[in-house]
Amino acid sequence: VFERRLAPLELLSESSLLALERGWMRLVSEIGIQFQHEGVLERFRKAGQRVEEDVVKFDPEWVLEQVRKAPGSFELRGRGEGTSLQFAADRMAFCACQSAPFVRDAGVRRNATVDDFRNFVHLTQVIDELDTPGYPICEPADLDVETRHLDLQLLLATETDKPYAAAQFDPVGCSDSIAMSAIVHGGLDVLRESPALFGVINANSPLRFDGRMLDSLLVLAEARQVVVVTPFILMGAMGPVSVAASLAQQTAEALTGIALAQLVSPGCPVVMGSFVSHSNMQSGSPGFGGPESAIGLLASGQIARRYGLLWRSGGGGLTSSQTSDAQAAFESLNTMLPAFLAGANLVMHTAGWLDSGLVACYEKFLLDVEALRILQLELVPLEINDETLAFGAHEEVGHGGYFFGAAHTLERFRECFYRPMIFTTDGFDRWRNNGAMEAEARAGARWRALIEDYEAPPLDDAIREELAEYVERRRPVLIANA
Amino acid sequence: VFERRLAPLELLSESSLLALERGWMRLVSEIGIQFQHEGVLERFRKAGQRVEEDVVKFDPEWVLEQVRKAPGSFELRGRGEGTSLQFAADRMAFCACQSAPFVRDAGVRRNATVDDFRNFVHLTQVIDELDTPGYPICEPADLDVETRHLDLQLLLATETDKPYAAAQFDPVGCSDSIAMSAIVHGGLDVLRESPALFGVINANSPLRFDGRMLDSLLVLAEARQVVVVTPFILMGAMGPVSVAASLAQQTAEALTGIALAQLVSPGCPVVMGSFVSHSNMQSGSPGFGGPESAIGLLASGQIARRYGLLWRSGGGGLTSSQTSDAQAAFESLNTMLPAFLAGANLVMHTAGWLDSGLVACYEKFLLDVEALRILQLELVPLEINDETLAFGAHEEVGHGGYFFGAAHTLERFRECFYRPMIFTTDGFDRWRNNGAMEAEARAGARWRALIEDYEAPPLDDAIREELAEYVERRRPVLIANA
Repeated sequence: VFERRLAPLELLSESSLLALERGWMRLVSEIGIQFQHEGVLERFRKAGQRVEEDVVKFDPEWVLEQVRKAPGSFELRGRGEGTSLQFAADRMAFCACQSAPFVRDAGVRRNATVDDFRNFVHLTQVIDELDTPGYPICEPADLDVETRHLDLQLLLATETDKPYAAAQFDPVGCSDSIAMSAIVHGGLDVLRESPALFGVINANSPLRFDGRMLDSLLVLAEARQVVVVTPFILMGAMGPVSVAASLAQQTAEALTGIALAQLVSPGCPVVMGSFVSHSNMQSGSPGFGGPESAIGLLASGQIARRYGLLWRSGGGGLTSSQTSDAQAAFESLNTMLPAFLAGANLVMHTAGWLDSGLVACYEKFLLDVEALRILQLELVPLEINDETLAFGAHEEVGHGGYFFGAAHTLERFRECFYRPMIFTTDGFDRWRNNGAMEAEARAGARWRALIEDYEAPPLDDAIREELAEYVERRRPVLIANA
Repeated sequence: VFERRLAPLELLSESSLLALERGWMRLVSEIGIQFQHEGVLERFRKAGQRVEEDVVKFDPEWVLEQVRKAPGSFELRGRGEGTSLQFAADRMAFCACQSAPFVRDAGVRRNATVDDFRNFVHLTQVIDELDTPGYPICEPADLDVETRHLDLQLLLATETDKPYAAAQFDPVGCSDSIAMSAIVHGGLDVLRESPALFGVINANSPLRFDGRMLDSLLVLAEARQVVVVTPFILMGAMGPVSVAASLAQQTAEALTGIALAQLVSPGCPVVMGSFVSHSNMQSGSPGFGGPESAIGLLASGQIARRYGLLWRSGGGGLTSSQTSDAQAAFESLNTMLPAFLAGANLVMHTAGWLDSGLVACYEKFLLDVEALRILQLELVPLEINDETLAFGAHEEVGHGGYFFGAAHTLERFRECFYRPMIFTTDGFDRWRNNGAMEAEARAGARWRALIEDYEAPPLDDAIREELAEYVERRRPVLIANA
C-alpha cells in the first residue's frame, strides 16, 4: 500500500463545500432516496426516518450521525505475508480493472475467457504495485453465469494471496464469497474481527438503490466486510449535466448508503465510492478521462475527507479509447493523477481498462502499471540533505565537466534512476533497428514475459480441499435454483 | 494567458528548501561559476565578487541582492489585440516546442523546412491556448544558417501577432531580433519600456556559461527584453545522478545568471528557467517524462517561488518517444501536469515535441493542444452554488430517471461538457466503421483542417516594407561576415 505524504489538491473552497452540503441535504430530505427493499425501508422507519412508499426522506443530521460511526482505518486481510492492506486516510491501494466482458490482446478484441481471468489474476499477483485483483477483472463468457462466481472466487482464493473482492453483484454471490473466505481465513468470526473481502455496492442512480444491491449491502455489512458504496453517475444520463449537481447527488447517494450500512452494523468498515463522468451529448456514449472525470475525482476526494470517510476513486486508468494509443494514455493518467492528488484510498480500474470499461486489455494493463510505478516514485516529498546534495560530485567534475564517469555516478548508476518496463529512451536509429515498435507492441511482449514470473502462492491442502468441496456442494444448488 | 487559481503542489519541506539553499550557496561560493567572457568577469570583479581566472566565487548574499531586483511581473508585448502576455506569479503562458531539426508527419521523419516552420507558426496563431510560438519551432534545413534568423524573425514578425522569442543563440541574432521588433513596435524606447521578445539563455552546465550565450544575455538585458536563464541538466551528463544535487546546481546557475542580468540592467525582466531530466545510464541517451522529470519540475517551481522569481518550466509536453503513442502521451502529460501543479509562468515545448526534442511532430502538436485545453478546463476551482446545484433538474427527473431529455439538460447540452478535437467516445462498432483510427491518425486529419483557419493578421504596409528592407540590408553583411 502506497503512503501518500503530499497534501491533497483542493478544488473546492469552503463556500463551495458548504453549498455542496446544502445541496445533498436538500436532496436527501426533500426528494429523498428510493430504496427498493421492504426490509431496508422498515429499518429506516424504525430509526425514525420518514418513509413515503419506497422513498426515504432523511433527516440529514441523522445521516451524518450514522456516517460518523464508520471507522477511519481498518486492515483488509490478505492470506499472504505482507499482502494485507491498511486502509487509512494517507494510504492508497490499487485494484486492477473490473467487469470487462471483452478482452483485447495483440490488436484483437474478443470475448473474455476464464484463461484471461486467470492471466490477469496472475499478472496482479506478480506486480507489486497492484494491491488487489478485486473480483472480476474480466467476465469469462465460457463459464456458466449461474455458477461463475464460485469458479472465480475459487480461483482468487487459491491462485493469489492478495486480498480480493466479494462476488458483489447479488447477495448469493456475497454469501458464497464470505463462506469461502471464511474457509481460507479460519472462520466467520475471524472475518468479522477484520475483513478479508470488499464489495462495491452501486447506487442505481439517480437517487435509487435497487433490491439486489441492497441485499448485497446487507450481507456484506452483517458479516462486517468492507462496503464500498459507489454511485455511478454519467452526467446527462444518471445525473444532471452539472458537475456540482452530480456531486451533490453522489454525496446524497453515498452517504445514505453508508448510513444504512452503519445502521445495520455499526462500525462496519465502509468506503465512500465516487464515479462521476460525462455522456457524449451527441451520441449518448459515456466518456472517461476528460476534464469532467478529473474534476469529479478531485472534488470527490475532498468531499470524502470532509465527512471523515475513506474514499474509493472511480478510477485511475479510465479511458474511452478503443486501443492503447495516445488518447488512452492521456485519459488514463488524467484520471490516475487526480486519484493521487485527491488522495484516493482505493483506486479501482488501475490497470487494463479500455473502451469505457468494456475491454480488459493486456497491453494497457502493463502500460498502466508502468504509469503507476512512475507516479508512486514521483509523488512523494523530495528529501534534500547533505548526502543527496553530493557536493563531492561537483568538486570531482568541476566546471563544464561530464558526470558519466564520475565516481559518484559509478557508485550509483544502476539504481539512481527509474528503469522502465516498456517506455524507452532509444534514439531513432536504435528504435528503428529494434523493430520500430510503438509502446503498445512493446507492452505485448512484456506481459507475456512477466506472467512467466508467476508462482502459485502456497496454500494448505486442507483449505484447498474444503474450498473445492464447498464449490462442488454449491454448484448443483445454484443450477437447480436458476 | 491562463490564470492559475489552485495552490501549487509542494514537494519540498522547509528543511529541504533550507538544505537546497545551503547547497547552491556552497556551489557558487566554494566551487564558483565559470564565465567564459572577459567583460562579464570584469563586471563581477567591479561588483566586488572574487574572480579567479575565469571562475567567479560569489558572495551568495550578493547574488540574492541582485535577484531581488527582478520584477515580479511584467507584460510581454504582442502586436495583436489581446495577444500581450501578462507574466505574474499566478499566470501561465504556453509556448510551442522549440529547435527541432526534424519533423514528423504521417509516420515519416524528415528534415524540417521553412514550410514546416510556417505551418507551425500558423497553427500556433490559430490555437487560442498557445500563447507564443517562441522562436524556432523547428530548424529549417533549407535556409542558409548564416541568415536563417533573419528569415525566421521576418516570418514571425509578419505572420503571427502573438509575442515571440529572439534569435537567442548568439548576440547577432539577438541584435537583429531586437532591431526588427523595434520596427514592429515603434522603436527601441518602446521595447525598453515593456519587452516584446524573450530569449532563453542556457548555462553550459555544469557551472559554466560560455561566451556566446553571455553575449546574448548582455544584448537582451541591455535592451531590457526578457532573459530566461535556463540551465539544461541531464543528470548523469551535465549534473550528478541525484535530483537534489542537480537542483542545487540548477539554482546556482540560474541565480548567478539572473544576478548578471540584474547587474547589467537592474530591474530587467527575467525568468528563472529549469530543465532537469535524466540520462539513460545504459545508453547515455536523454530521458524525458519519467519520474525524474516530474520531480525536477515540481521542485523547481517551488524553488523559484522561494526566491520570488517567475519560473519557466523545462516543459510541458516532453517525451523520449519516437511516435505519438501511449508513451508519448504519458510522458507529455507527466511533464505538463507538474508544470501546472508547480505553477510554471512560461511553459516551453507545450506542443509538438517528440524524440527527446529532435522532432517537431504535427500529430503530436494537436494531441498536446487537446491535452492543454483539457487541463486549462479542469485545473480550476469548482464553483458550487445554488445555480450549479440545479435542484430543479433532480425535481424534474426524480428517482431512477434519465436526464438526457430533461429540460435542464436540453438547455445546456451543447456547452455543458468539453468537446474534444481528437479524442473520441465512439463505441467499438462506430469506431471501426469510421476507419479504426488511433488518436495519432485522427490528429493528422485535424491539423490539416485546422491550419485552413489561418488568416494573416493585419500589418501596416510601411512596417512590412521596413522589415523587408532591414532583412535585405543585413543579409549580405551576415554572409560576408560568415
